[in-house]
Amino acid sequence: MRYAMGVEYDGSEFKGWQQLGESGRPSVQASLQQALSSVADAPIKVMCAGRTDAGVHGHCQVVHFDTDVVRNLRGWTLGTTTRLPPAIAVRWCQPVADDFHARFSARARRYRYRLLNRQVRPALNRQSLSWERRPLDAVLMHAAAQALLGENDFSAFRSVNCEALHARRELQAISVTRDGEVLEVCVQANAFLHHMVRNIVGSLILVGCGDKPVSWLGELLAGKDRTVAGPTAPPQGLVFVGPLYPDNWQLPAEVTL
Amino acid sequence: MRYAMGVEYDGSEFKGWQQLGESGRPSVQASLQQALSSVADAPIKVMCAGRTDAGVHGHCQVVHFDTDVVRNLRGWTLGTTTRLPPAIAVRWCQPVADDFHARFSARARRYRYRLLNRQVRPALNRQSLSWERRPLDAVLMHAAAQALLGENDFSAFRSVNCEALHARRELQAISVTRDGEVLEVCVQANAFLHHMVRNIVGSLILVGCGDKPVSWLGELLAGKDRTVAGPTAPPQGLVFVGPLYPDNWQLPAEVTL
Repeated sequence: MRYAMGVEYDGSEFKGWQQLGESGRPSVQASLQQALSSVADAPIKVMCAGRTDAGVHGHCQVVHFDTDVVRNLRGWTLGTTTRLPPAIAVRWCQPVADDFHARFSARARRYRYRLLNRQVRPALNRQSLSWERRPLDAVLMHAAAQALLGENDFSAFRSVNCEALHARRELQAISVTRDGEVLEVCVQANAFLHHMVRNIVGSLILVGCGDKPVSWLGELLAGKDRTVAGPTAPPQGLVFVGPLYPDNWQLPAEVTL
Repeated sequence: MRYAMGVEYDGSEFKGWQQLGESGRPSVQASLQQALSSVADAPIKVMCAGRTDAGVHGHCQVVHFDTDVVRNLRGWTLGTTTRLPPAIAVRWCQPVADDFHARFSARARRYRYRLLNRQVRPALNRQSLSWERRPLDAVLMHAAAQALLGENDFSAFRSVNCEALHARRELQAISVTRDGEVLEVCVQANAFLHHMVRNIVGSLILVGCGDKPVSWLGELLAGKDRTVAGPTAPPQGLVFVGPLYPDNWQLPAEVTL
């Protein structure tokens, strides 16, 4: 039997979704597999919709796993959560067709980046806010970001460590809005390259503070040169909102297109 | 010279605004006085607009302090923040008339209570959310809360440890709204009794989950009996948004009526 599961986590306490090399801090995946295996009393491996880096949070990461062990959905959801550290919780769990794949069935992914834009660093909610002290113009940033829409080669915003076969991605929506001191960037694409959102945000910040013109994001995209784009924005402001699947999988509304 | 200062803090790491008895964790006030005294190179004591309990957060607590030491406003703001632990930051600082008093000049105070309303405990942003697993009807809670408006004796929602001389307070506004899984209660009054917001929220939850009728809050208020009202809601969902002062003091907009 295959199950799909929605998982929420505070990435600040983990080395990232997947353990890469040795490290003191556990990975989210390892913690989740340990809790699930404890509930099942048998080893369980999970496959996720999109790996997140160290410090990046998950609002509704989706995983799938296979098991012959029979537990009710309350057991998979609440029993697993009880065995997880406080920084991880299972949002929901449901059986799904055998050909569902958390990664390959996803048609789109959404990310949200939040930064506190003021002179002084954040104190309250500092675990999920990054910080920019230079005043940022969200309207200019929003205008600049629209140049990225559509299917494009995103080499300019791709980490040197990115292992994807090619850099073509379809950016379906991007917005920059301000609510008081907090700036929010929301992005949706069919898929993302390594560091793509953080690199886009790092370049948008240079437009927002007036260092670069609104046309700059389009120029960076066309130039395909990572070395001339802005710096990678820090991880703590980034949340993987979640993947989106076609409705035939009958998953919860928050992950259905 | 008297100064007014806006202070933000994550209360989860402190014993409360003021140290009461011995304890391992420091108080917000002690941490702030230590940082200010370091900037001034002389002892500085602060007076706050409203003390908060252990675990309760401050969005814009206001303090005043007196000093003959001359520092520019950047020094009082950024220099103090640099000397504070990560859970506290100074939002702003400005000179103010000698008869300004952080507590006695305030005409109103605002609090906000946020709780995650779902089966599973919070993971992301769990430092500033409390949790209720029973489904809550925010519309019923909002309707019930309106019975508290106006100048009333709030003995039904007053902690047994409350030291106020009387229980009459003017509740100026109260709202209950839902945004997805998060329920938010916003309250404004001329002043609050000890545990007043958390006790009101604890009773509203019993209306929201259907245990008590909408009329119950009004009945509790009229009965003035704390022992029959709901339990005290936990502290981590509560934020002291800040006090409000008349505009003659020329303080920042976020604390001006």
